[in-house]
Amino acid sequence: MQLLQALCQIAAPSGNEAPLTEFLLRYIQQHQPTWRTIPTVVAGGEFQDCIILIFGKPRTAVFAHLDSIGFTVRYGRQLVRIGGPDAETGYRLVGRDAQGAIECTLRVDEETGALSYDFYREIERGTELTFRCDFRETETTVQSCYLDNRLGVWNALRLCETLQDGIIAFSCWEEHGGGSVAYLARYIYETYGVRQALISDITWVTEGVRPGQGVAISLRDSLIPRRSYVERIRRIAREAGIAHQLEVEASGGSDAKELQLGAQPWDWCFVGAPEDNVHSPDEIVAKADMASMLALYQELMRQL
Amino acid sequence: MQLLQALCQIAAPSGNEAPLTEFLLRYIQQHQPTWRTIPTVVAGGEFQDCIILIFGKPRTAVFAHLDSIGFTVRYGRQLVRIGGPDAETGYRLVGRDAQGAIECTLRVDEETGALSYDFYREIERGTELTFRCDFRETETTVQSCYLDNRLGVWNALRLCETLQDGIIAFSCWEEHGGGSVAYLARYIYETYGVRQALISDITWVTEGVRPGQGVAISLRDSLIPRRSYVERIRRIAREAGIAHQLEVEASGGSDAKELQLGAQPWDWCFVGAPEDNVHSPDEIVAKADMASMLALYQELMRQL
Amino acid sequence: MQLLQALCQIAAPSGNEAPLTEFLLRYIQQHQPTWRTIPTVVAGGEFQDCIILIFGKPRTAVFAHLDSIGFTVRYGRQLVRIGGPDAETGYRLVGRDAQGAIECTLRVDEETGALSYDFYREIERGTELTFRCDFRETETTVQSCYLDNRLGVWNALRLCETLQDGIIAFSCWEEHGGGSVAYLARYIYETYGVRQALISDITWVTEGVRPGQGVAISLRDSLIPRRSYVERIRRIAREAGIAHQLEVEASGGSDAKELQLGAQPWDWCFVGAPEDNVHSPDEIVAKADMASMLALYQELMRQL
Repeated sequence: MQLLQALCQIAAPSGNEAPLTEFLLRYIQQHQPTWRTIPTVVAGGEFQDCIILIFGKPRTAVFAHLDSIGFTVRYGRQLVRIGGPDAETGYRLVGRDAQGAIECTLRVDEETGALSYDFYREIERGTELTFRCDFRETETTVQSCYLDNRLGVWNALRLCETLQDGIIAFSCWEEHGGGSVAYLARYIYETYGVRQALISDITWVTEGVRPGQGVAISLRDSLIPRRSYVERIRRIAREAGIAHQLEVEASGGSDAKELQLGAQPWDWCFVGAPEDNVHSPDEIVAKADMASMLALYQELMRQL
Repeated sequence: MQLLQALCQIAAPSGNEAPLTEFLLRYIQQHQPTWRTIPTVVAGGEFQDCIILIFGKPRTAVFAHLDSIGFTVRYGRQLVRIGGPDAETGYRLVGRDAQGAIECTLRVDEETGALSYDFYREIERGTELTFRCDFRETETTVQSCYLDNRLGVWNALRLCETLQDGIIAFSCWEEHGGGSVAYLARYIYETYGVRQALISDITWVTEGVRPGQGVAISLRDSLIPRRSYVERIRRIAREAGIAHQLEVEASGGSDAKELQLGAQPWDWCFVGAPEDNVHSPDEIVAKADMASMLALYQELMRQL
Repeated sequence: MQLLQALCQIAAPSGNEAPLTEFLLRYIQQHQPTWRTIPTVVAGGEFQDCIILIFGKPRTAVFAHLDSIGFTVRYGRQLVRIGGPDAETGYRLVGRDAQGAIECTLRVDEETGALSYDFYREIERGTELTFRCDFRETETTVQSCYLDNRLGVWNALRLCETLQDGIIAFSCWEEHGGGSVAYLARYIYETYGVRQALISDITWVTEGVRPGQGVAISLRDSLIPRRSYVERIRRIAREAGIAHQLEVEASGGSDAKELQLGAQPWDWCFVGAPEDNVHSPDEIVAKADMASMLALYQELMRQL
């Protein structure tokens, strides 16, 4: 869990993913000698803060978004949201401006819902604040801010260890409207002819998707993937005997939105562990679901 | 009307258009020997469940979406919408899961608006349900579920009979956020240099667009097409003496959204018959409007 | 201010930008001999009503939208909005239909908010109406309809006078959902490898952005640009000693939306003077902010 903890502690809200990108590039540099296959690393320049890893002869690409939700300091002590963070008075927020490190407290106006911070000084306009990471582990669970999507990133990095053929793409801006998957998808499709995707991200515990019951295969959220592709994934999961649950939602989205609406014919499916306390500092995931998520990705990347 | 009736009876909600695609490929195979021009058929593989027909030296492309609205079974007896179907307690729904064929009844909670089904057994999670087709014909009207857009598909297929130069593109996912027109549009533009489009789809009867008064030429809906292109279409309709009506709406959308927002400079116009009882099992269209729709498409494909 | 006044008086609502395009092409033809660098002019055909000017060896592209908000005549005396115009009973509107020139009055139903017009005759369905231009100038301010975005266009044209290396792109449909920047961005990126953008547009006076305090550099609106690019712009503005303000908003958008979501990796930043009485016939901007806007663009195009 050290890797996951390290990932959760890095501040990288949408638009400022660079610190996490740098961490990953170092991690990949250090660990790829131990991986079954050495990937080609595509990063920098026209890839902004994204990273693409190409292993062997790829048929399927895994997308894991780097960015997290957070807050931007507006005028005076006002805050505005980056993505859709949960907000409760008392949440601890951290950041940094020209005057130094910041650790402050979120305040939610009970009547208007307006967001502000409590701190001994005024914070510079435009400063980004993220949840302070309090990483907690039990025998069966991990709990922290930003399991969404550092757990999806962790899953992708662990997948790298044994991957023979495939692509791992680390994307930006997913929590705040998107902005990188369109060009990652175009590059991958045009360069490698790959148009099968798996979205390595975290979903919600609901009445139909329970913690500890296995990774969720999403049949739909606000968008609907192509039925025939999802059926192939269900069959592989069933035949491999990997614990999984079927998710059916009317709302929610992911990096898949840009695949679905882009100018390449991607088949995609969201496959991810469910979490409770979504978008709060207390996101919690069952370790059993992390394990089945990784096992299913390993199987899918072999068979798809 | 046999062709239209056959089209309306095929279940093909957004994401699972394959059954209609197969029907169309067979239909095209059988009937193209009788068409004035034999088209090139582009389908399968990277075109997912879409079909493109290229006739002669194309200047204009017609887009007709294959998919329909419907419902997905969620957890327990809950349903969530595919696209924006009308919902009333008592509507008959059909589908199929691993346990066999389904014919059940829609139920709308009067207080919460929540959707569920009445059936003697539980239906498998993720199963798609569509309206049961009750096709009705009078001397002056046709009535059925899914005239939107099987009538647009019918119009495109009838147009094939006499078309000399042009493209017909059958698209997917239109009712649920889109997802195929972006790549169809890119392929057509890059391969054939075509960037004029007509949207063969069905619109609404309103205070300004009346049944039986002719096909509607839409000057705008939630999006606004380029004025100069729409003016050319109006002029052709006027000079050909084909009954038509001008539509001006602030809402609604079509496959044109992906043309408008994509990375190719398409000119587009929605040209379609109006229907009443929109997105219900009882959609109704005047035969006179079907006739003027087909006549106008024939004229436009000659002159544009 | 003669140029700005001329620009404000031309009716060019989204979808019908052609009159302004023609004005600009004539203006460019006439004035480019006096510019430091003669640009390549790309317009017509597949560029619809957009114009691209290429100066020298470009590294950065400036986007300025041509279109304005307005109204479309629906059925009877109803109006629907083009973009998001402010609406108050009594606003003077102008237009033209087959029966001749129109000058009418906007009426807003107090209860329903429904829009209609008062005029001695019925106006043809689909006719576009725009605010009547009442251009007012004081020592310190200009006031008119459509400073958004004729002032952004003015800024771009003034920038042309001294520009050595760069691209100016005049776009369409910005006020009504977009539709041209996706293909302009693709063309510019693929042809010139340029992927740095500045959005030459007008923003809002708010509690944090005050008239006369300098051009606004937007750190975010509904979308969040890449932090590292915005930081470079802030540094250049600071070091050049040009008056500027930092904007942080949770809503609002611009041509940047299509850059952010398109399939090329653009870095972008909105840099524009603030106006009050947004989207009304009485938009007002401080001349000092126009001056700092132009000065900052000149500096940015040199240094970025």
